Amino acid sequence: MLRTHTCGELTAAHNTQEVTLCGWVARRRDHGKLIFIDIRDRSGFTQIVFIPKESGEAYKLAQELRNEFVIRLSGTVNKRPKGTVNEKLATGEIEVLAKELEILNPSMNPPFEIEEESEITEETRLKYRYLDLRRKKTFNNLVLRSDLYKIIRDYLGKNKFIECETPILTKSTPEGARDYLVPSRLNYGHFFALPQSPQLFKQILMVAGIERYYQIAKCFRDEDLRADRQPEFTQLDIEMSFVNEEDIFGLTEGLMQAILKELKGIEIKTPFPRISYDQAMEKYKSDKPDLRKEAGSDFAFCWVVDFPLFKYNEEEKRWESEHHPFTAPAECDLENLESAPQKVKSRSYDLVLNGMELGSGSIRIHRSQLQQKVFDIIGISKEEADKRFGFLLEAFQFGAPPHGGVAFGLDRLLAILSGEESIREVITFPKNSSAFCPLTSAPSEVEDKQLTELGITIRRRK
Amino acid sequence: MLRTHTCGELTAAHNTQEVTLCGWVARRRDHGKLIFIDIRDRSGFTQIVFIPKESGEAYKLAQELRNEFVIRLSGTVNKRPKGTVNEKLATGEIEVLAKELEILNPSMNPPFEIEEESEITEETRLKYRYLDLRRKKTFNNLVLRSDLYKIIRDYLGKNKFIECETPILTKSTPEGARDYLVPSRLNYGHFFALPQSPQLFKQILMVAGIERYYQIAKCFRDEDLRADRQPEFTQLDIEMSFVNEEDIFGLTEGLMQAILKELKGIEIKTPFPRISYDQAMEKYKSDKPDLRKEAGSDFAFCWVVDFPLFKYNEEEKRWESEHHPFTAPAECDLENLESAPQKVKSRSYDLVLNGMELGSGSIRIHRSQLQQKVFDIIGISKEEADKRFGFLLEAFQFGAPPHGGVAFGLDRLLAILSGEESIREVITFPKNSSAFCPLTSAPSEVEDKQLTELGITIRRRK
Repeated sequence: MLRTHTCGELTAAHNTQEVTLCGWVARRRDHGKLIFIDIRDRSGFTQIVFIPKESGEAYKLAQELRNEFVIRLSGTVNKRPKGTVNEKLATGEIEVLAKELEILNPSMNPPFEIEEESEITEETRLKYRYLDLRRKKTFNNLVLRSDLYKIIRDYLGKNKFIECETPILTKSTPEGARDYLVPSRLNYGHFFALPQSPQLFKQILMVAGIERYYQIAKCFRDEDLRADRQPEFTQLDIEMSFVNEEDIFGLTEGLMQAILKELKGIEIKTPFPRISYDQAMEKYKSDKPDLRKEAGSDFAFCWVVDFPLFKYNEEEKRWESEHHPFTAPAECDLENLESAPQKVKSRSYDLVLNGMELGSGSIRIHRSQLQQKVFDIIGISKEEADKRFGFLLEAFQFGAPPHGGVAFGLDRLLAILSGEESIREVITFPKNSSAFCPLTSAPSEVEDKQLTELGITIRRRK
Repeated sequence: MLRTHTCGELTAAHNTQEVTLCGWVARRRDHGKLIFIDIRDRSGFTQIVFIPKESGEAYKLAQELRNEFVIRLSGTVNKRPKGTVNEKLATGEIEVLAKELEILNPSMNPPFEIEEESEITEETRLKYRYLDLRRKKTFNNLVLRSDLYKIIRDYLGKNKFIECETPILTKSTPEGARDYLVPSRLNYGHFFALPQSPQLFKQILMVAGIERYYQIAKCFRDEDLRADRQPEFTQLDIEMSFVNEEDIFGLTEGLMQAILKELKGIEIKTPFPRISYDQAMEKYKSDKPDLRKEAGSDFAFCWVVDFPLFKYNEEEKRWESEHHPFTAPAECDLENLESAPQKVKSRSYDLVLNGMELGSGSIRIHRSQLQQKVFDIIGISKEEADKRFGFLLEAFQFGAPPHGGVAFGLDRLLAILSGEESIREVITFPKNSSAFCPLTSAPSEVEDKQLTELGITIRRRK
C-alpha cells in the first residue's frame, strides 16, 4: 500500500507516530503562514498542517494544492492543543504535521463542490457520477447496497439456498413488458432477448431438483418512460420446492427482520399482517396499503393475498392473468376455473412496505394439465404456449415438484432504507429518465460495419 | 414444508419415528410382494418399503410408480435388519415403511437415465438440462459455484471491499472482441453494447474514491466459435486504489489459499512463484507454464510478470497494446516509451494455474498525459480515444488515484476445481459451441412488430 493508515483512523493513541496517508484534498485554509489541508479518503478526513520551517519542501508544494488533488503525504501525528479538538470528526483529536508531500494527480476545478451542498441538476451529477460518488451521502448508498447483499446472502446461505446464475442472453420471457433484443451474428436473423426476470429459469431449476435457489439478478424491461424506472434493475429472486405459502412468508419475514436489524438497528415484529386483496381495496382503496400510521413504525410491512387469478381485459374482451400465467389457483377454486373465472383466487402474494410493492410471488402451477387449462382461459393457444415457453412445459412432463417463490426489487428496497425518493440514488451508474446514461453517452451510434456483421440495418425514418 | 425430513438425513437415531419425505423415484424394485423404492432429493436417497398389509392403499398406488415420478410419502423409520445395512449410503442404516403415498406429479420416461452413466450426447444433456442437473455430478458443480462465491465474498468483505454493480446496458468497451449490441427503442438508431468486462467502470469507481471494489460480473463477447468459449461468462473483477503489484499479489494469493483450503482441503504455499514473460518463453516456451511437475502439487499457481507493453502488428505495421491501453508502463522504462517501444515492459501480470490463464490484471495509467502518450504510440487518435472512452479520460482530469486490479475467469477456475474439461459443465444453462441454447432455443426469430418498434430490419441475404 502507498499509505500506512487511512484518513479515518488516526486518534490520540497514534500521537507522535510517523504516518503516510493518501487521499483527496477536501479543503485548504491558509492561516497566516500555516497551511491547513483536510485530506479525505473513503473512511474520513484528517487535518494536515504545513509549517514553513518544519515541513520544508512540502510546505512549498502545499501552496499548489487545490481541492480534489490526489496527494500522498508523510508526517507526524500530533495531539491537537486543547480548545482546537474537533469533536465532530473521528480524527478530531489529532492533526498530522506534514514532512513530505507528493502530488499523485492534480485535478481540474470540479463542476460542483464535493464537500458542500449546492444546487446542481441531476443530469450534471450523473454525468460526473465519479464526483457525485465522492460525496458521503451517495457513497453511503453504495455501501448500503453492498451491506444489504451480504445480509441477504448470509441469511439465504444459512437456509441452504444455492446461488445459481441464469443466462442474460436468452429467450423472451412472459412478464408482459417489451424485451430488449440482441441480434445474433452467428445465427443470422435470430435474436436473443434479455430476461425480464429469471422466472422460467427458476422454475426449471425446481424441476432440476435444486429445491432452494436464489440469485441477485439483473432484469431488463424496455418500458416507456416513467419517472422512476430503469431499463435494468436488480431483483432478489427466490424459488423453493415442496413448500406452501407459509414457508415463503416465514423465510421472507426472517430475512426482512435481519435486514432491518442489521442495517437500521430496528426490531420489527413478525408475522407481518396479511390482508386479502378485497379487504385492502375496501379499507385502503389500494392493493399497496401504507400501514405506517396504524403500526406506528417507520417500516410497516404487510402481505396482500387472495388476489384474483384473472382480470378481464375489456378492450380485447378476454381474460388475462393478474400476475403471470404460471400462478397457481387456490385449491378451493379449482372447480370454478372454467365456469366462473372471475371468482377464482390465486395463490399469489405481494409484500408491501410503506405503501410500495416490494416483492411479489406465488405458488406455481406444477402440473401440465392445469397449466394448459389456464392457458386456454387466457387464450394462449397450444402453439403459442409452445413457442413462448415450450421448454418449461416440456420440463413439467418429467417430474416437476410443487414449488413457489418470490422476487423483491432491491433498488426500491434500498431507496426506502436510505430514505431516497428515486432508485437512481442507489444505483451505481443509473440511466436518466430517458433511458440514457449521461456518463457514458450510451446508447450511441455504432459503425456500419458492426451492423453489417449482425445482419441488420437501421430502418429509414418516415 | 410438505415434508418433515430430507431424503439424506435419516439414521438409526430416527428409528420408530413417523416421517414425511418428498422427492423423486430413483429406483423401484419388486421383491416378491414387497416393493422397494429409492426416493431422491438433493440431499440423498432413502429406501422405502411397501408391504401389502401394512402399507394398504399406498401399496396399490406404489405399483404405478415409475422413475422420476415426484412423490410424497409418510411412514415409519425402521432400522434395517443386520446384513441389509448399506454402508455406502448415508441413510443406509434405515428404511421407511410406507403408510401413505401421494403422487405429486408423474413423469414421462426420461430420455436418459438419471442414476446411471449412459452414453448421451452433450446436446441431449443441454436440451434436458433439468434432468442432467438431477445427476449428482452436475448438481455438485452448481453447488461448487455457490460455495466458491461465498468464499470469495467473505474473503473480500473481510478485506473491506465494496461490492458494486456496473451496467449491462452500456457502451462499447475496449477489450478487442466484438460487442453484443442492443438496439434502443427510445433512442432511434442508437445501440447499447453489453460489456466485454467492467474495465472502464471499475477504473471510474477508483476515480470516485471507492478504493476497493469487487464484483462477480457477467461479461459478453461475440467471438467466433471455439470449443470452450461462451457468449457470456463470469469473472471476478477487482480494483484497488493506492496500491502496487505486491498488494494485488498478496490479496490474490490469500484468496486462492482460502478457496483451495475450503473447497479442496488443500493447503497451498505462498507467495506464488513469479516468472518473467521472457523467462517463461525461454524455459517453458509458453507464457502459461504448467508447474505441476516441479511443484509436485495438483494445483500449481504462478505469476507471469514483466510482459512487454506493446506488440507489433506486422500486418498493419503498427504497435498495439499487449494487454489493454490502460496498462501502466514499468517506471524504469518510461524514458524509452516513444524512442524504443519494443523495450518497454508493462506493469501487468497474469495468474496461471496448471498451465491455464486464470486471471490477468495490471497497475493502470492514472495520469492523462501518460495515457495520451500511449494512445499516440498505438495510433489511437485523440478523436477516437474521446469517442471510445472519453468519459474515462475526462474523469482522469478530476483527481484519479493510482490504482490497479485484476480479473479472474470463474468458469475456468470452477472447471479446474471440479476436474471438468469444459466450462459448460460448470455453467447452469450454457450455450453450445454454436452460441445456441439447446434448452430454450435462443437465439430465435422475433416478430416483425418488435423489429419495427426498434427501428431495425434484417438485411436481405445475398
